[in-house]
Amino acid sequence: MNMSSSLPVIRLKPKANARAIRHGAPWVYDNELVTDRRTKGLTPGALAVLEDADRHPLAIVGVNPLSRIFARVLDRNLDATIDQAWFAAKFTRAQEMRDRLFGAPFYRLIHAEADGLPGVVVDRFGDAVVIQPNAAWAEALLEPMVAALVEVTGVSCVIKNGSGRARGLEGLDEESVVLVGDAPEAPVPVAMNGATYMADLTGGQKTGLFYDQRPNHAFAASLSRDARVLDVFSHVGGFSLAALAGGATSAVAVDGSAAALSLAEAGARAAGVEARFETRKGDAFDVLTALNEEGSKFDVVICDPPAFAPSKPALEKGLRAYERVARLAAPLVAEGGYLGLCSCSHAADLAKFRTASVRGIGRAGRAAQLIHTGFAGPDHPLMPQLAESGYLKSLFFRL
Amino acid sequence: MNMSSSLPVIRLKPKANARAIRHGAPWVYDNELVTDRRTKGLTPGALAVLEDADRHPLAIVGVNPLSRIFARVLDRNLDATIDQAWFAAKFTRAQEMRDRLFGAPFYRLIHAEADGLPGVVVDRFGDAVVIQPNAAWAEALLEPMVAALVEVTGVSCVIKNGSGRARGLEGLDEESVVLVGDAPEAPVPVAMNGATYMADLTGGQKTGLFYDQRPNHAFAASLSRDARVLDVFSHVGGFSLAALAGGATSAVAVDGSAAALSLAEAGARAAGVEARFETRKGDAFDVLTALNEEGSKFDVVICDPPAFAPSKPALEKGLRAYERVARLAAPLVAEGGYLGLCSCSHAADLAKFRTASVRGIGRAGRAAQLIHTGFAGPDHPLMPQLAESGYLKSLFFRL
Repeated sequence: MNMSSSLPVIRLKPKANARAIRHGAPWVYDNELVTDRRTKGLTPGALAVLEDADRHPLAIVGVNPLSRIFARVLDRNLDATIDQAWFAAKFTRAQEMRDRLFGAPFYRLIHAEADGLPGVVVDRFGDAVVIQPNAAWAEALLEPMVAALVEVTGVSCVIKNGSGRARGLEGLDEESVVLVGDAPEAPVPVAMNGATYMADLTGGQKTGLFYDQRPNHAFAASLSRDARVLDVFSHVGGFSLAALAGGATSAVAVDGSAAALSLAEAGARAAGVEARFETRKGDAFDVLTALNEEGSKFDVVICDPPAFAPSKPALEKGLRAYERVARLAAPLVAEGGYLGLCSCSHAADLAKFRTASVRGIGRAGRAAQLIHTGFAGPDHPLMPQLAESGYLKSLFFRL
Repeated sequence: MNMSSSLPVIRLKPKANARAIRHGAPWVYDNELVTDRRTKGLTPGALAVLEDADRHPLAIVGVNPLSRIFARVLDRNLDATIDQAWFAAKFTRAQEMRDRLFGAPFYRLIHAEADGLPGVVVDRFGDAVVIQPNAAWAEALLEPMVAALVEVTGVSCVIKNGSGRARGLEGLDEESVVLVGDAPEAPVPVAMNGATYMADLTGGQKTGLFYDQRPNHAFAASLSRDARVLDVFSHVGGFSLAALAGGATSAVAVDGSAAALSLAEAGARAAGVEARFETRKGDAFDVLTALNEEGSKFDVVICDPPAFAPSKPALEKGLRAYERVARLAAPLVAEGGYLGLCSCSHAADLAKFRTASVRGIGRAGRAAQLIHTGFAGPDHPLMPQLAESGYLKSLFFRL
């Protein structure tokens, strides 16, 4: 007897798109389901069998009556059992790709839906992993999931990070806790693109380090030989430390967070490039304005701001902010130099972000060639059905 | 007295978009101009001053009454003189960026409008360059342009390649000729991504080698350690030789051109990887079908076909062809392996090409993650105004 025969059943409305589910769509919204009292009474995080309106089973799903995303598809194979072995198979497959691409175990191991674990994010930092179980089903099955994670990766420390917007939408608490082993007492050094970054796995933003910009850091580094580099919204020094590894003569990191800049400085020391590295704490717009007033010039300027347009209602305002960044940054670029502009806004698609950036550069009286368009690295795969959802865009211009 | 005061004048119609020209648009179509008998009588390739409808000068342009693109903007500075020094400044600026990015002088030096020389393409192969002056103004000014090219690059050989569709639209002949020095008697070895390619500068397709796929070759190489690789529409072995450099256990190159495959084999020998390399001459669709019938499996399959949708009327048919490529290639990918699909069609934008590819993979009964979206390398810059025109797209899926 398989698992699915003992699970509760939820059913799509006749008008809901069962074909999309058959073709790989990962979510079912609450308004697509027949929600009777029994369905509404399901425990958040419970497993269920999703059926189409004709009672043909479609998939094993994780449900959450408290979320607009009522069901997340876990397996289209009705014979599957969602247990430690099932998780281990997902982790093994994901790890195989990362180990093929990266020289060392520092990467995003699981990028949610695209890696077959809806709502789950796992970042690996050598001997430690940080897991974000941002969906009720994952929270409910945390124990077999973490056991599988340790089994497959062999790490000695698993930290659960409960912060972040996504958990709120699922009605989950924000608790962060060490699940296995002891959390590293000091920030963990992470080698990427020849640079060393310091990841604070328990105190930092999100999981302490963003792996998504890795290929764009590499591109910036390839531009930075003998260059003066400015890294605005630097966080722990993503672009500036990569640029120094690429041979920059100097790099200035600007951020509003003293903690992030302190980690950036520690990274510079760890790589022995601290003599060429400088930080400047402050509001990025204020610092850009001040640098313009000082008449500063750099050969490479990169701006990697937080999401100015995280959602559709924020789009217009967000695009104006991106334009403003471009307008303030472009005059700081020396003639023939390079400007990198990034967006991690879901709502601003590539064309809109590019248009805002080009307009800002134009308003600064500069002309530009677009030499590179980059996205998140391959450890952040996308479901092809949701490829437009690629949130990270990175544009490099020559001015 | 500057050059522009002695030039003929052409004038925009009152309804034409002078603002676009001021903001960087590079072209004026014939229907945007007041075309009196004098204007129509201008010599193809002549220089002129473009004025707006109010007789304010906008730019120095190169004209061609035989082309739908009547005028191409050369300089918005009316004091400019279009002479050898002017060309030298363009080449110097372009070379500076390429030398910064690439370790050796093998790259596209001039990518037309985006590098400030409308219609002109220059590819550098060490001591030789191949120039495509695909606009009448460039053909007319070939002498100072080539003198500047030799002055800036120091090459000893300049070959003019007159083939290609673009010249026909300009009413230019198809003559290919050695302009400076002696053409290399043997194919030129080109090092890229650890591989060696053989570029036939006088007999090959276009300029003998395509530099545009360089970053996508690199990505494929990063996937190919210990992998069995299939490179369909291989030309001179772009993806397969990079994959072998990346540690592939074997690579099979499929192409319809015996000449291209022979250059691929020479490249494999030059890099000492010929024992792991195999070629298969034939129609790509036939070979894909045959490989399916043979039950062949590869860990990495890449298909880089010619432009199936070069223009809007060919779009629907072209997208069906891309879907067919995906449908035939996907079953050849081993479980957990990788599929790279490329398009160099102007008319098929990224979203359309991706949809066709995903549909083809789905029709083959396979599910996929999208792990990488790549474009042409930075030696193929884009004008931001024409960024949608980025013709090359490269999608890598994990199946």
